[in-house]
Amino acid sequence: MKVALAQLNFHIGNFHSNREKIIAHIRKAKHAGARLVVFSELSVCGYHPYDLLEREEFLEWTNESIEIIGKECIGIAAIIGAPTINKSQKGKKLYNSALFIEDGKIKQVIHKTLLPTYDIFDEYRHFEPNNNFSLVEFMGKKLAITICEDLWDDQPTNNSFGRNKLYSKTPLEELSRLKPNLIINIAASPFAYDQEGKRKEILTRNARKYNLPLIYVNQVGAQTELIFDGGSMCINQKGEVEHELAYFSEDFRIIDIEAQNEKNLQPVFSEIGKIHDALILGIKDYFGKMGFSRATLGLSGGIDSAVVAVLAARALGPENVRVLLMPSKFSSEHSVEDAEILARNLGIKHELIEIQPMVDAFEKGLANSFEGLSPDITEENIQARTRGVLLMAISNKFGNILLNTTNKSECAVGYGTLYGDMNGGLSVLGDVYKTDVYRLARFINIQSEIIPENSITKPPSAELKPGQKDTDSLPDYHILDQILFRYIELNQAPVEIINQGFNEDIVKRTARMVNSNEYKRFQAPPILRISSKAFGFGRRMPLVARYEG
Amino acid sequence: MKVALAQLNFHIGNFHSNREKIIAHIRKAKHAGARLVVFSELSVCGYHPYDLLEREEFLEWTNESIEIIGKECIGIAAIIGAPTINKSQKGKKLYNSALFIEDGKIKQVIHKTLLPTYDIFDEYRHFEPNNNFSLVEFMGKKLAITICEDLWDDQPTNNSFGRNKLYSKTPLEELSRLKPNLIINIAASPFAYDQEGKRKEILTRNARKYNLPLIYVNQVGAQTELIFDGGSMCINQKGEVEHELAYFSEDFRIIDIEAQNEKNLQPVFSEIGKIHDALILGIKDYFGKMGFSRATLGLSGGIDSAVVAVLAARALGPENVRVLLMPSKFSSEHSVEDAEILARNLGIKHELIEIQPMVDAFEKGLANSFEGLSPDITEENIQARTRGVLLMAISNKFGNILLNTTNKSECAVGYGTLYGDMNGGLSVLGDVYKTDVYRLARFINIQSEIIPENSITKPPSAELKPGQKDTDSLPDYHILDQILFRYIELNQAPVEIINQGFNEDIVKRTARMVNSNEYKRFQAPPILRISSKAFGFGRRMPLVARYEG
Repeated sequence: MKVALAQLNFHIGNFHSNREKIIAHIRKAKHAGARLVVFSELSVCGYHPYDLLEREEFLEWTNESIEIIGKECIGIAAIIGAPTINKSQKGKKLYNSALFIEDGKIKQVIHKTLLPTYDIFDEYRHFEPNNNFSLVEFMGKKLAITICEDLWDDQPTNNSFGRNKLYSKTPLEELSRLKPNLIINIAASPFAYDQEGKRKEILTRNARKYNLPLIYVNQVGAQTELIFDGGSMCINQKGEVEHELAYFSEDFRIIDIEAQNEKNLQPVFSEIGKIHDALILGIKDYFGKMGFSRATLGLSGGIDSAVVAVLAARALGPENVRVLLMPSKFSSEHSVEDAEILARNLGIKHELIEIQPMVDAFEKGLANSFEGLSPDITEENIQARTRGVLLMAISNKFGNILLNTTNKSECAVGYGTLYGDMNGGLSVLGDVYKTDVYRLARFINIQSEIIPENSITKPPSAELKPGQKDTDSLPDYHILDQILFRYIELNQAPVEIINQGFNEDIVKRTARMVNSNEYKRFQAPPILRISSKAFGFGRRMPLVARYEG
Repeated sequence: MKVALAQLNFHIGNFHSNREKIIAHIRKAKHAGARLVVFSELSVCGYHPYDLLEREEFLEWTNESIEIIGKECIGIAAIIGAPTINKSQKGKKLYNSALFIEDGKIKQVIHKTLLPTYDIFDEYRHFEPNNNFSLVEFMGKKLAITICEDLWDDQPTNNSFGRNKLYSKTPLEELSRLKPNLIINIAASPFAYDQEGKRKEILTRNARKYNLPLIYVNQVGAQTELIFDGGSMCINQKGEVEHELAYFSEDFRIIDIEAQNEKNLQPVFSEIGKIHDALILGIKDYFGKMGFSRATLGLSGGIDSAVVAVLAARALGPENVRVLLMPSKFSSEHSVEDAEILARNLGIKHELIEIQPMVDAFEKGLANSFEGLSPDITEENIQARTRGVLLMAISNKFGNILLNTTNKSECAVGYGTLYGDMNGGLSVLGDVYKTDVYRLARFINIQSEIIPENSITKPPSAELKPGQKDTDSLPDYHILDQILFRYIELNQAPVEIINQGFNEDIVKRTARMVNSNEYKRFQAPPILRISSKAFGFGRRMPLVARYEG
């Protein structure tokens, strides 16, 4: 039996476009002789619609789409993902479902059993968990259809004080009692560079454990912060990946589940290469799905804005990126030069506006209020905010969305000016530690020097006062990032980090900076997520806490 | 038996201060002859610590506090709220628990059964639901101890396409089989002006239904956005409220549950009066818990900033409020005058800075880039952002936290400038519709004209271009607010709103404005929540959705 894997990029709430895509691929699959075509989780409406799921019209449009798609399923069956109504009058009003459509009708509806409620996930907010297990019979085969987390029954709780097995049910255990011939998993599993191996491990382990072939169809494309990487797979009953679809782009493949095919896998790819591609997809889809095509950003001559400019040019085309160079009296000569070289290398439009006249105007306006007081961080922030105003003016006038260039290290310790360099519609590097920004720059320059070497090698500086260096206020990034990774991604207590040999003062100061800057991050732009613990929706910390941990 | 109700204001993660408060009230209760003292939900750590619950040191400090508090419980028992560890190795690692402490030891631990996961609530993210029901025997009585939502078993799902009963368990039904003599509910139930009656109704109905007296102890005080209003109660078995503790302030009362006492209730209070008090508490606690004492804001002469200035002066003291008047060439003469009168009425420090020189500097700096282009919203935004920079300069220099003055109507339709008038550490009116801002102003002026009448009666204007009025871009607020309330609070579909007689074009335009401005609200300050559906954490909408509902 030929099965088509349709790994597509859906747009939340864009029922028309999602439906057209699904229908086109049903036809394509049918034309190629497939008997079944599989789409990803919540494919009809896009994953995840959050509270749009509480709205009547959203459900009406979902059902309308399902009906139209259903009519296409003649001579071919399809598995699509959609929310469906829980008719029992008890529990959450919706299920997160896989619809098996055959002969133009919904033949069977399978609901998701394991609903993640950690990190970025809140599925129990909207969905009732499944409690009944059945197979779908099709062409003499029995299909065990599952949805994403349903295979992650081993998931542990994320506590630094001891782990529990999060779920008490094992959907495949229940389904295997009914003697299926094939496992199908439809998913919306976002990319995290530090979790990639885990996904493949879980899928292959399940195939092996139940001695069944497994078809896995994942969503691809970014939805604001979340970047879905695709990488759909077909795994044989020995747990070997036989087919692997593309990462970070749409893909479609027809496989014969009975045939012994040559393996058809994706080329092995470096971690930093994946992060690079993930960020480009993240930018591209944010713009595309918001209906914008052009970006702007401030180019300081430093490494962060250089990397963002490259990624933006690659995502949107250099003709769609317009940058501002905004030197102050504290900017080094090199800064402007480095920024200009980069802009020329990329072929992006760049303009230079000196900020001193506006800064002077602010300082003059504030002179009475500030009489007798020495300059401090206030005056540094005025510079950063003046740049923010200029960039937003370009954004407003030309419709270029401002890209934020703050990296994760800065975002963590609050090294940045709210309403200044923290501005932007999207934070490109907010989940990339400074040391990884260096790796990205090296990756970008691997074939030729796109980013001037000087931007990479010079000591990082905000250039807001004479001779300023980041290390005046912060630990060295290679130390800081190690501490931050342990504190944020690994959720380790300061004492645990100190016990690993890190300097006690630095660890405590770092933890204090992270905790006292929740208020800044609260107003940060959405951050493209590439790790298992990004700032934003997946890390929810109270603002008013007094917390010395 | 004398029972003490301790309605206190806790600070998340501030174990030392919470513990001192709890111990002081254990002693006070014991001194007054009480045999039992009841504290609110998660009182040891403050409600809600969110992801701090995933950290080892947080649990260690919790346990340390419990141990110290326990030693005080000699000759008196106490019920305190705290997270406790789920030792079963399955499910979430924590319970949300009520600890019954007697003779210096934890005698019994009761876990919360119904974990809300809607609106602002995510309790299932961290807590495992209880599944075992038992009473606590104390002084010959059997106590049915429950935690907040446990009594809200009738809670419906929040869907505009049909409601389900959210929970399938009824904790009191289970507990009533064990023949209790008294229901105790410890809570952290936030204020919402449109849900107030519901809480009392649910509590009295449960007392009546099970024919049992009920003691309800709620948290008081604000935790960033959430304002807990207190209003703890003692209800007799006929369902009559016999004792009611203060709203919006700490309170403590000892009641004899056997005695027939005179009713001791709170004075009846208007809805707008409650909103007024809630916002003051919200400001006060945000500052107090963040460790700040002083505020700043821009006073435009309009009603929104006037109301915020009054609330700030009442919350923090007029000596701690410092305002900026920042007229432009488009400001009416009246604006400055009205602002000055208000500042004098309040006795707050005010300074005037003309923004034109900075605006000119920006326009000059941008002249090359903007050559040949007509002025548009860009130039309006430059004015708003110039004001934003000035206010943040005052904030940075003097440590006065900037209060945001955007109201809910503006926030809903995106009528405001990101990084301009949307700046601030806390949004005071972001959950108050414009028409309710008028009611607040009238309430403030009830005894004397604090806010100049002219600020209230003149047509609302952003004063960013000549003769500009809000109604140039927006429907009349009395129409707009009705539509917004139906769309946001009631979750009604546009067609449903149109069917109630509202103009189709206005409804559709309003819905479009709400949906297309998610990106602005994403970066808004935390908003003091006074309704059942505030913008922010309780209303989660995807940014990149294409959504025409």
